Amino acid sequence: MLTDTFAVRFYETDALKHVSNTVLVGWFEASRFPIFKMFTPELDLDNWPLILANYNVDFLQQIYMTSDVTVKTGISRIGNSSFVVYQELWQDNSLKAKGTTTLVHFDYQTERSAKIPADIKTQLEALLVEVPSPA
Amino acid sequence: MLTDTFAVRFYETDALKHVSNTVLVGWFEASRFPIFKMFTPELDLDNWPLILANYNVDFLQQIYMTSDVTVKTGISRIGNSSFVVYQELWQDNSLKAKGTTTLVHFDYQTERSAKIPADIKTQLEALLVEVPSPA
Amino acid sequence: MLTDTFAVRFYETDALKHVSNTVLVGWFEASRFPIFKMFTPELDLDNWPLILANYNVDFLQQIYMTSDVTVKTGISRIGNSSFVVYQELWQDNSLKAKGTTTLVHFDYQTERSAKIPADIKTQLEALLVEVPSPA
Amino acid sequence: MLTDTFAVRFYETDALKHVSNTVLVGWFEASRFPIFKMFTPELDLDNWPLILANYNVDFLQQIYMTSDVTVKTGISRIGNSSFVVYQELWQDNSLKAKGTTTLVHFDYQTERSAKIPADIKTQLEALLVEVPSPA
Repeated sequence: MLTDTFAVRFYETDALKHVSNTVLVGWFEASRFPIFKMFTPELDLDNWPLILANYNVDFLQQIYMTSDVTVKTGISRIGNSSFVVYQELWQDNSLKAKGTTTLVHFDYQTERSAKIPADIKTQLEALLVEVPSPA
Repeated sequence: MLTDTFAVRFYETDALKHVSNTVLVGWFEASRFPIFKMFTPELDLDNWPLILANYNVDFLQQIYMTSDVTVKTGISRIGNSSFVVYQELWQDNSLKAKGTTTLVHFDYQTERSAKIPADIKTQLEALLVEVPSPA
Repeated sequence: MLTDTFAVRFYETDALKHVSNTVLVGWFEASRFPIFKMFTPELDLDNWPLILANYNVDFLQQIYMTSDVTVKTGISRIGNSSFVVYQELWQDNSLKAKGTTTLVHFDYQTERSAKIPADIKTQLEALLVEVPSPA
Repeated sequence: MLTDTFAVRFYETDALKHVSNTVLVGWFEASRFPIFKMFTPELDLDNWPLILANYNVDFLQQIYMTSDVTVKTGISRIGNSSFVVYQELWQDNSLKAKGTTTLVHFDYQTERSAKIPADIKTQLEALLVEVPSPA
């Protein structure tokens, strides 16, 4: 799996003194950057080839600001035009949260979902992980 | 359902010129405020009685900054100690996104999940909605 | 002055149990929306006519999540191509923070700052306020 | 000066396709973490010894998401109970923004500003920088 480490920022905590739940989807998005680059190596914002269809996050334990967090990113399912990213958030050797994000390959010319090109599919397959059910 | 209206803030957009997907869970959290108040009318941060266990958001259409968004909030399931909040995000009379959040009633003294008190259960039941499957 | 009211969102607090200082510039930006519209009524993102050159915020008192905040927005100085927005943040009848933002009228064609058109200058002048020194 | 590097996160951009101005104060706060730790090594949230009195940021050039940013942090002034942090934001070897933050040492017991202890003053002095006027 890809790994990405973040120092928790003070403003990412909330009044309950731990990390706000709203922060996780931002970290997860940031950690998907290498996957964005498979689809658009030049980060072409005018023809962005991916649409986010769903995200789903399970919160298992509180996340604190006292130590860094690590996001592990893999692929749990590859369909014809869509795929599912599976991500885990670890802190202090504990699994704190895990989530999935469903992304759809999109053709902005035709404004329709589009088959994932074979070469990108190969890159995604290299990140395939077995996800502990039911995830 | 409860309704809450937000003007889209410029910084809530991203480089794709529409609202960032990361913003939705913040709006949804803000719209759950009346539900927080059922459990802790005085907003007691030292004994916060709710834990967020999961959120799940379906993104149906792009959300733009040119008009306000409305979040509708109901309850889709009430269990013994947990319940599910169902929320819809509307803009320009279109359903743009919908999501669920699973909250667990928590007793910070015993550090365990706890039965939802009957009087709060009654308040939650008043917000019960039939959710279009599969939601 | 223009006024805009915001409910404090839970995620806008931080671990010190009050509103994070980082949130203020977002509220202030949101409250400048009517000023953006003077320059680009159709919100033309491809030829955005304003550049933010500076912001400066004085924090006078803690801001809590228990009641709404009101931002008052006026203009404290109008130059040839730039102007200064003066904003106050009030909560519970107390002035909690105040700040200035320097904006420059910009011509994306020539990529240079540009004279503020006379009709817009008139609109800005209608918002002129005497700022309590030293602000 | 202290240095801290951040990958730009996609959600930190806005509809103008560059980094939102609102993000800078968050990066600057994160980069002041070593200074917080001088005052409270154990990060004691219940007796937080610093209050933010002012921040002031000059935006010199657009910041893009295509490369990392580096924040350099020093101290530009040390008073009796307050001090000023000076920070620069660099990207691709260009100075993109610079700012100051005024922090006040605070005693939560007496609820008043308090003299900066000598040992901490020594640590702050080690970070003193000559700031290019007028900064």
